[in-house]
Amino acid sequence: MTDKISRFPVPELDALPEDVRERILAVQERAGFVPNVFLMLAHRPAEFRAFFDYHDALMEKDVGLSKAEREMIVVATSAAGQCLYCVIAHGAVLRIRAKNPRIADQLATNHRKAEITPRQRAMLDFALKLSTRGSEVEDADIEALRVHGFDDDAIWDIGAIVGFFAMSNRLVHLAGTPPNEPFYLMGRVPKG
Amino acid sequence: MTDKISRFPVPELDALPEDVRERILAVQERAGFVPNVFLMLAHRPAEFRAFFDYHDALMEKDVGLSKAEREMIVVATSAAGQCLYCVIAHGAVLRIRAKNPRIADQLATNHRKAEITPRQRAMLDFALKLSTRGSEVEDADIEALRVHGFDDDAIWDIGAIVGFFAMSNRLVHLAGTPPNEPFYLMGRVPKG
Amino acid sequence: MTDKISRFPVPELDALPEDVRERILAVQERAGFVPNVFLMLAHRPAEFRAFFDYHDALMEKDVGLSKAEREMIVVATSAAGQCLYCVIAHGAVLRIRAKNPRIADQLATNHRKAEITPRQRAMLDFALKLSTRGSEVEDADIEALRVHGFDDDAIWDIGAIVGFFAMSNRLVHLAGTPPNEPFYLMGRVPKG
Amino acid sequence: MTDKISRFPVPELDALPEDVRERILAVQERAGFVPNVFLMLAHRPAEFRAFFDYHDALMEKDVGLSKAEREMIVVATSAAGQCLYCVIAHGAVLRIRAKNPRIADQLATNHRKAEITPRQRAMLDFALKLSTRGSEVEDADIEALRVHGFDDDAIWDIGAIVGFFAMSNRLVHLAGTPPNEPFYLMGRVPKG
Amino acid sequence: MTDKISRFPVPELDALPEDVRERILAVQERAGFVPNVFLMLAHRPAEFRAFFDYHDALMEKDVGLSKAEREMIVVATSAAGQCLYCVIAHGAVLRIRAKNPRIADQLATNHRKAEITPRQRAMLDFALKLSTRGSEVEDADIEALRVHGFDDDAIWDIGAIVGFFAMSNRLVHLAGTPPNEPFYLMGRVPKG
Amino acid sequence: MTDKISRFPVPELDALPEDVRERILAVQERAGFVPNVFLMLAHRPAEFRAFFDYHDALMEKDVGLSKAEREMIVVATSAAGQCLYCVIAHGAVLRIRAKNPRIADQLATNHRKAEITPRQRAMLDFALKLSTRGSEVEDADIEALRVHGFDDDAIWDIGAIVGFFAMSNRLVHLAGTPPNEPFYLMGRVPKG
Repeated sequence: MTDKISRFPVPELDALPEDVRERILAVQERAGFVPNVFLMLAHRPAEFRAFFDYHDALMEKDVGLSKAEREMIVVATSAAGQCLYCVIAHGAVLRIRAKNPRIADQLATNHRKAEITPRQRAMLDFALKLSTRGSEVEDADIEALRVHGFDDDAIWDIGAIVGFFAMSNRLVHLAGTPPNEPFYLMGRVPKG
Repeated sequence: MTDKISRFPVPELDALPEDVRERILAVQERAGFVPNVFLMLAHRPAEFRAFFDYHDALMEKDVGLSKAEREMIVVATSAAGQCLYCVIAHGAVLRIRAKNPRIADQLATNHRKAEITPRQRAMLDFALKLSTRGSEVEDADIEALRVHGFDDDAIWDIGAIVGFFAMSNRLVHLAGTPPNEPFYLMGRVPKG
Repeated sequence: MTDKISRFPVPELDALPEDVRERILAVQERAGFVPNVFLMLAHRPAEFRAFFDYHDALMEKDVGLSKAEREMIVVATSAAGQCLYCVIAHGAVLRIRAKNPRIADQLATNHRKAEITPRQRAMLDFALKLSTRGSEVEDADIEALRVHGFDDDAIWDIGAIVGFFAMSNRLVHLAGTPPNEPFYLMGRVPKG
Repeated sequence: MTDKISRFPVPELDALPEDVRERILAVQERAGFVPNVFLMLAHRPAEFRAFFDYHDALMEKDVGLSKAEREMIVVATSAAGQCLYCVIAHGAVLRIRAKNPRIADQLATNHRKAEITPRQRAMLDFALKLSTRGSEVEDADIEALRVHGFDDDAIWDIGAIVGFFAMSNRLVHLAGTPPNEPFYLMGRVPKG
Repeated sequence: MTDKISRFPVPELDALPEDVRERILAVQERAGFVPNVFLMLAHRPAEFRAFFDYHDALMEKDVGLSKAEREMIVVATSAAGQCLYCVIAHGAVLRIRAKNPRIADQLATNHRKAEITPRQRAMLDFALKLSTRGSEVEDADIEALRVHGFDDDAIWDIGAIVGFFAMSNRLVHLAGTPPNEPFYLMGRVPKG
Repeated sequence: MTDKISRFPVPELDALPEDVRERILAVQERAGFVPNVFLMLAHRPAEFRAFFDYHDALMEKDVGLSKAEREMIVVATSAAGQCLYCVIAHGAVLRIRAKNPRIADQLATNHRKAEITPRQRAMLDFALKLSTRGSEVEDADIEALRVHGFDDDAIWDIGAIVGFFAMSNRLVHLAGTPPNEPFYLMGRVPKG
């Protein structure tokens, strides 16, 4: 077990290009801390920019899939990939967005037992197939999603989120980056 | 997703043999609720008795392995078996016994990233091997544990706990028993 | 290969609690020898009692499932778990109970090729799924058993036997306990 | 379960080419019955001839590897391939050649627990690797065999037997051919 | 990476039995070079003869399955077995026989994406099942082939080719035999 | 088999944002055709930009790892993921950059048999581990790379390329995008 942020260099904020630094300061302002994955990627500004541009294009909208559903995909596939950072950090976001303190633990352990709708179950069955044995995806898998009302854009989003976090999981495994401590508890206790 | 306690009959407390009922009332008194696995097993009193006798013989002592270490084995192997009830219920107990609100989520996701000692890592490597590909266990695996100071009794306990929860996981999968809601939060928030 | 009974201490009969010793003497009287698993577990009397109480509650009845069918489950799932002791010892019992000298070898190698009924095939398909990928069991698997006439009690028995021998296999892998020699031939030769 | 000899045509002996018929009559004379695999292959005389020529070239010699050791390879790898015919038929031959009534059941269940020498263990570790994940074989695996005294010819024989029975297992799975009943008991009872 | 023809002895042509030498000279005349597998097997003349007799009995006919379809089976199953020699050498033959410069690369990577007919897809689904998990083949798999018009002889051929190349793949892994360089380009460029 | 570029909408060039269209025209000018993955991603301009920015940041440099070595990682891991587009398209680039017409087929089939240096073998062993079982990566895997002279930047590049193409493979599986025909032959024939 390591509590280092990364196996690779983590630059000082001052040493970063301005746009990267500002992006980090913005998330710090919103979250109250800097999620470690921002610091892990900062030593590579071009990759940092592409990563978060890609992330935001996929995760920050709620057409077709709700924001909570997007996080469900992240948690379920990251648990299959045993990525601690992704499960804990996105589990926190999922709990908040779904307003359900149990959902992340359920999806991380066995999505068949989670408090989800049949439509969400179909979404996650597809996401897990694409994530763990994607070469077996065929037209019939796409059709099975349409039956549940997913259109082209929603299906693309499911698959693209799977792809993006297949990358993200592997970057975390490469760097050995642990989740920030606050993520463990976020969204578990009703705000009083 | 089901919120039923079991796919099989769940008897009324009044209909149970006295010793079974008393065991259930005792745990309710201690925990504030009846963990679902007690109700799931109650329709089979002889099995109920053997199950909890066995459980207590393995889990309610702290020689060789601490009580927290015993729960670590349960959480890590039950996560490998994707048993939601066991991960959530024993995760709660583990957080309390280890006084660490992060440890259960870490072990449930990837034990290589958990805040544990090298000795505990060796214990869990062995437990996971025995749980998932036990036929490959050979003398060298036992010797590797002795190097970390585990004696005969401690090694037996590791293995017997693995065995007991291999059974327990499958009973839960059979019955479809969900964890009680309070387990999700137990041990996560410092008592004020 | 080892011919030791266990990697752990094997107590002298005289040193055992009376009820444990009597249970061992009783099986010796019936079988003509002491099956090694009794000696392997004797160093832990509380676990010994729970183990055999549990075993007898599941295996010594013939309602819903015949005794031979119970042994079929043990042999098929223990072969999947590559547990030599369980395959050989319970293979012997199965041959005797099914009055079929080929059935154990068939189930231990490939249950799809065994001389069994479609109902028994369904029983073993479920047992093997629960044993090797139990987290995938869903309501539909239970329903598939009902189609073959299994009721709640029979389905519970199938699953509980799977669970018990998932434990038993792992205890044997832990201890390295070999089968007693007489088991290899029992039930193979017609009594003349 | 089928008791048919094959899913494909089984010609009458009279309809076979003379050399094929004579080969079948010769094995019948030796064994007292015609092993089903001879009848399963008879509808394809050219393949029949190549198959048994290949078989005899590999199995009917005892230089480098004893005949019993050759059968060990067949039983261990055919059990990994879950081929009932090969495990039962070659298990019988192995028991006779090794003069050990337990050895086939041991190798069919878990070769790590069999009554074999370290040299034979190394032979079977290699055979199982080549059989189940042969693409991972590298020079170091060959060197590990030389350490145990296997020379070029013996190593080739191990590998060629693995290859031949990889084919044989699949032919049996294709045809669904069951073992002849006498194989189950052969070599188990000391001749009186 | 090795450029040796074999880990085992490769005899001089002059030292070979006449029939073996003539077979090698004949293929050299046809192909312009001696495929390495002929040289790899030459140190064992009896096995050499059986191997190529078997090969020719299965591959040199075009009833039921075209010659191109036979090579499809070889390429798809050898890719699953990660056998470089078989994929490259039979990929070359496949390109020529199918008059399609892309087909071998497609089948070697993901047969679901290849330019093949539904009948060929069914053939390869079966071939891959028999090759990688043959113990699961049951009557229904055979019936699924009949639906596509395959008769007994064609189905046998599919299965026998799978079996033969299961052997062949393992012999290549044993010997470490690389493909001859010309195979890489054969059938890729239209003859001008 | 499909020859459609994507299961999702493929916009006309005229309908694209100017920067996207220019990027597509630039690659067309260089390559002589538009690689299908550009068209597949064009319906999502923000993702298109992030994808190719990320791609170029990782693939268009030759410090630490040569450009050919970067393509080796793509081909080996995409073959493990059975991604036809990535294997064929990047196989073409690899052949050209490595000036070796055999290397892509070797890496796509079995990287252990490829014409590579021990340093490249270590690079690909790590890449394949991160790609297929990344959760098992630990400090020792990183150290094993340093022994071969890879520094922080080179190790990061290996891992980031693995991550990026884990995403890319899944996008292709999602969209069902086939490789452009010219890729199959590129780099195979010496320019005359």
